[in-house]
Amino acid sequence: MSRILVFGGARSGKSSYAEKLALQSGKRVVYIATAQAGDEEMQARIALHRQQRPANWITVEQNLALADAIRQHATPHTLVLVDCLTVWLSNLLFSEQRDYPEVGKLNPPDSFSQQRAQFLQVLQEVTSDVVLVSNEVGMGIVPQGAVSRWFVDEAGRLNQAVAAACDRVFLVAAGLPLALKG
Amino acid sequence: MSRILVFGGARSGKSSYAEKLALQSGKRVVYIATAQAGDEEMQARIALHRQQRPANWITVEQNLALADAIRQHATPHTLVLVDCLTVWLSNLLFSEQRDYPEVGKLNPPDSFSQQRAQFLQVLQEVTSDVVLVSNEVGMGIVPQGAVSRWFVDEAGRLNQAVAAACDRVFLVAAGLPLALKG
Amino acid sequence: MSRILVFGGARSGKSSYAEKLALQSGKRVVYIATAQAGDEEMQARIALHRQQRPANWITVEQNLALADAIRQHATPHTLVLVDCLTVWLSNLLFSEQRDYPEVGKLNPPDSFSQQRAQFLQVLQEVTSDVVLVSNEVGMGIVPQGAVSRWFVDEAGRLNQAVAAACDRVFLVAAGLPLALKG
Repeated sequence: MSRILVFGGARSGKSSYAEKLALQSGKRVVYIATAQAGDEEMQARIALHRQQRPANWITVEQNLALADAIRQHATPHTLVLVDCLTVWLSNLLFSEQRDYPEVGKLNPPDSFSQQRAQFLQVLQEVTSDVVLVSNEVGMGIVPQGAVSRWFVDEAGRLNQAVAAACDRVFLVAAGLPLALKG
Repeated sequence: MSRILVFGGARSGKSSYAEKLALQSGKRVVYIATAQAGDEEMQARIALHRQQRPANWITVEQNLALADAIRQHATPHTLVLVDCLTVWLSNLLFSEQRDYPEVGKLNPPDSFSQQRAQFLQVLQEVTSDVVLVSNEVGMGIVPQGAVSRWFVDEAGRLNQAVAAACDRVFLVAAGLPLALKG
Repeated sequence: MSRILVFGGARSGKSSYAEKLALQSGKRVVYIATAQAGDEEMQARIALHRQQRPANWITVEQNLALADAIRQHATPHTLVLVDCLTVWLSNLLFSEQRDYPEVGKLNPPDSFSQQRAQFLQVLQEVTSDVVLVSNEVGMGIVPQGAVSRWFVDEAGRLNQAVAAACDRVFLVAAGLPLALKG
């Protein structure tokens, strides 16, 4: 089985490219959506994405327990597509207000550390193909809020860890993939 | 004729690289500037850019009707250089305050949709070489305002559509071009 | 001797990659840290970075006079690693409040122009290997404040000038280096 990371900026075409890779595999596709339909804007974005996916794909919504969702749906004949890791990270970091780090300490909440460890573990063990979509969020100006900087840091750390665990890594920009690994 | 997209971040050297490609073509260059000299800062930026261009280039200022401007100046012996698409997008999206999308709907104004369609059509038909400069704006943290997110979305969509229509695409960073296509 | 620029977004793995290049050189490493431990968050970041570096590296803290620091420590058997240029730029641009540019003029303060010229001069003359770490900050949405735009502009200009002076340039994303030059 192969593990592929597809990452890029907002509206870079990363999801479309990941979906193309999933289709080309010829396998049964389980699509794990990490977004929560909170407000109206997010509902519209999710609905638009869903319309654009093939009808025979199995869609699973899982906002937090990503490792469990992957393990549950992984088989040798399946490709698990996760879209996207950055939204999952955001869900984990901001789901428990009490776990906000004190400025200057920069520690993620325990729940996130555990979920991240479990996810990276599953990525090593999984028997299906996995395609993971993530965002590049660190190439703009350093954000003014400490919480935003903390999020950028954790997103970058997660991308590094996932890229290290994957066989192939693509950076997508203007709809065009650039192979960084594999 | 060839169609080339040169995109990159702010002060990445994308304009300089596009101008170098234009010079190398040996053709008559028509430079279409999309920026409007609104405030003093923008005037200074435009004046600086103009000083740096060859004196024999023909400069055309066109903030909105880009398709018409390209069609009007395109000949087989001409290279049309457009700098830049992101500013043109901004002009179109924000020129009509009443057309602001409601948050959650994310629809661009009709005037923009029409101009975009005409521009992409011209790009297919044009008989001159075309070099297009655009910005990558989606690799930072997701902006907090809905209108900013909407702009980032439309800029990313435009870059994808233009890259698909071009023969060659370069991402420029630190003044160095990276071929993504062609 | 070789001059290498390693740049990338926040938490892209650029520092780790630069440190790997320094280790592989087999030379004596002088690490020039440009960050100032202003607030608690910055102190934590600096302490974390320091823990991760080999114990036998010589650490020099120099926030402003970078050219002098490089010249002082450069020998044919030394590799000078500077981490990072963006923080140095920030120190120079914002160290003298009175030198803030008027909006629309966009001129950096004289002290910065001098330091930059001296740094680029040293980069031409230096007899040691040099590895320079810098940030890509221009691929997000254009920031709203004029001072932020000015910083993005100067950071982009600096990266272009340094990339032009270096023999090898790497863009790092998700921990993976992409050779743009050399």
